[in-house]
Amino acid sequence: MTAPILVLNCGSSSVKYQMIDMSTETVLAQGLVDKIGLDGSSISHKVGTDKHSIVEPIADHQAALALVVRAFANWGPTLHEAIAVAHRVVHGGETFRQPTLITPTVIAQITALSGLAPLHNPPALAGIAAAQSVLPSVPHVAIFDTAFFATLPAEAYTYAIDRDLASKYQIRKYGFHGTSHGYVSQASANFLGRDISSFNQIICHLGNGASISAIQAGQPIDTSMGLTPVSGLVMGTRSGDVDPGLFAYLERSANMDAVAVDTMLNKHSGMAGMTGGSSDFRDIWAEIRNGDDTARLAMDIYQHRLVSYIGAYMALLGHTDVLVFTAGVGENDHQVRAELVSRLAGFGVKLDPARNTPHNQQATVISTDDSSVTVLVVPTNEELAMARATYKLVEDHA
Amino acid sequence: MTAPILVLNCGSSSVKYQMIDMSTETVLAQGLVDKIGLDGSSISHKVGTDKHSIVEPIADHQAALALVVRAFANWGPTLHEAIAVAHRVVHGGETFRQPTLITPTVIAQITALSGLAPLHNPPALAGIAAAQSVLPSVPHVAIFDTAFFATLPAEAYTYAIDRDLASKYQIRKYGFHGTSHGYVSQASANFLGRDISSFNQIICHLGNGASISAIQAGQPIDTSMGLTPVSGLVMGTRSGDVDPGLFAYLERSANMDAVAVDTMLNKHSGMAGMTGGSSDFRDIWAEIRNGDDTARLAMDIYQHRLVSYIGAYMALLGHTDVLVFTAGVGENDHQVRAELVSRLAGFGVKLDPARNTPHNQQATVISTDDSSVTVLVVPTNEELAMARATYKLVEDHA
Repeated sequence: MTAPILVLNCGSSSVKYQMIDMSTETVLAQGLVDKIGLDGSSISHKVGTDKHSIVEPIADHQAALALVVRAFANWGPTLHEAIAVAHRVVHGGETFRQPTLITPTVIAQITALSGLAPLHNPPALAGIAAAQSVLPSVPHVAIFDTAFFATLPAEAYTYAIDRDLASKYQIRKYGFHGTSHGYVSQASANFLGRDISSFNQIICHLGNGASISAIQAGQPIDTSMGLTPVSGLVMGTRSGDVDPGLFAYLERSANMDAVAVDTMLNKHSGMAGMTGGSSDFRDIWAEIRNGDDTARLAMDIYQHRLVSYIGAYMALLGHTDVLVFTAGVGENDHQVRAELVSRLAGFGVKLDPARNTPHNQQATVISTDDSSVTVLVVPTNEELAMARATYKLVEDHA
Repeated sequence: MTAPILVLNCGSSSVKYQMIDMSTETVLAQGLVDKIGLDGSSISHKVGTDKHSIVEPIADHQAALALVVRAFANWGPTLHEAIAVAHRVVHGGETFRQPTLITPTVIAQITALSGLAPLHNPPALAGIAAAQSVLPSVPHVAIFDTAFFATLPAEAYTYAIDRDLASKYQIRKYGFHGTSHGYVSQASANFLGRDISSFNQIICHLGNGASISAIQAGQPIDTSMGLTPVSGLVMGTRSGDVDPGLFAYLERSANMDAVAVDTMLNKHSGMAGMTGGSSDFRDIWAEIRNGDDTARLAMDIYQHRLVSYIGAYMALLGHTDVLVFTAGVGENDHQVRAELVSRLAGFGVKLDPARNTPHNQQATVISTDDSSVTVLVVPTNEELAMARATYKLVEDHA
């Protein structure tokens, strides 16, 4: 029995999916429904090396899931062999601290948390409803992006603000990308052949979104994203940290209200906002090679922020054994890694240029043998992590 | 000739002043006009150990300066012997990078910067006008709280936001408490008998306001306050860093606009906001001794933030020689220093409990001889720094 699990990641206008065979942990099929509710909507579906696609109007998540059903029926494998469906849910608030079997009560609770993640939780709920209608007889499981950070210590998750307001509106650091940070921290332990509870690590998840976590003996003690995914590191289009005084200043000076500034910080900031162009690191390196000072400055700001967080987390951890790079930029951009690690020379961290190869399909050591901290590249795999968590939950309940 | 200089620090409802004899750098007189424009307004004036005060209605800064004139006339010394007046101005924007002789053009420029510091620059301007009317024949000099940080590198002062908006509205990290960070970093070099350009230091200015700076060979390379003085460390009533997503969230959830949230972060946050009570560290320690968990958590959050910044700045500096505590809490709270330094044990920083005495009127080493970083307490003296800068400028122009 192959025990396939369907993994769904529903955004506002997209559905990403994978069907994973849990007996071998291999991907049987994967696909993307894109531009839902927009012009040019389509589905692409890949089985092994065979790629298929359909371009047609897709009105909503219900129609998207119907198309996913059609894609599996047309090109395989058999969707109805799925033993469970794993759903990515961004915000679990203080309610959800682990993978959770979806019931009507759970749906009501996720709905209640939509105020904390108005762009993310509603599409996940739409995806859950649609998937339940096409696969009504299997367990559906919610995997929360915040759950891994539910055990952060209070001194890390509490903002230094009015305590009554914080309590009333559940204002705290939640952290995001938790599925990735959890998966990668365990994968690094497996790769090193060490018990995760025997060492400390810093995980740099550097993709279009980016976050960093300090993991002490397997437990997260701090992370850079907070109440929302806008804080912390510089990202593709997100600013990361800014002076909170910016809001009142732009209200007075530019007549921009909080929502307008928030949109600017989420959509028109980060690498794209600073360069006035692309947020793709390959483009930015090309501009740097062409002598573009703006691109070079954006790269320096990106690294300055990241070095600051690494130093901060080294201080919080007391002793740091391992520094891990993961996600799109972290796995594939050897130049960022090289420049970044060279900024950590004062702490005795040393990269081995021969080991720091551009692309990494599997975990690799990229530091020298005498580096004070072992630097790794560890590919993340959020879909596999979701499938594993779902498989475990379903097995435990079987 | 004693060459006294009058140093003025005008807030929205107060005027602090000192008359400093520059031949000996001693304070001839000091005082405070308090509650200007409010009930119970008063002046207190101290000459040596003699304290005097007057309680009477004081309508505005003009009336406050008239009262300062009366205080000097009543109780001495002779105000009109002042050879110059030094004025603290909070925000110098990108215009002012050093102490500046005040001319009508300079006043217009400071006025133009009021948008960046609406609570701070206007009272300074009122104080300048009033002081010029009572001491019209001496040079008046503006000392900017931002000036010391004017040489921050672009990778430290640039926010990762839309570059056109940043440029149009002069949005960048300015840094504050610059007079203190500049004075203390030089005082630590003097105390250690080292050339300031030969070593790296981290300065923790911990008062009711608090900020930290990384000083590389005498030059600041980063600091925790930014566009405004609300960012960075946890303060008495200010939050320091928060997730910028807080603003849109509270707009949606609590119908609080940017100005309301800004007021909360500036006035009802920090130690006072978290404890629901006092921001005075003596009170907070008393609560902790009484078993108050909320006070203990607030203290832990304060230290967590500070340790994070120290680690970040150690990473940016590459090598850190000296860690300095200054200002009210930094100079007088040996418990905060002890707990904080114990959190840095992983970096080899070690406090000597016998050297870590409660009050410090002069620079002191508080680390052990084998500590990886020399930890100092160095009292700040912004008034003396302002007087020295003014004296130098006046002498250079003489």
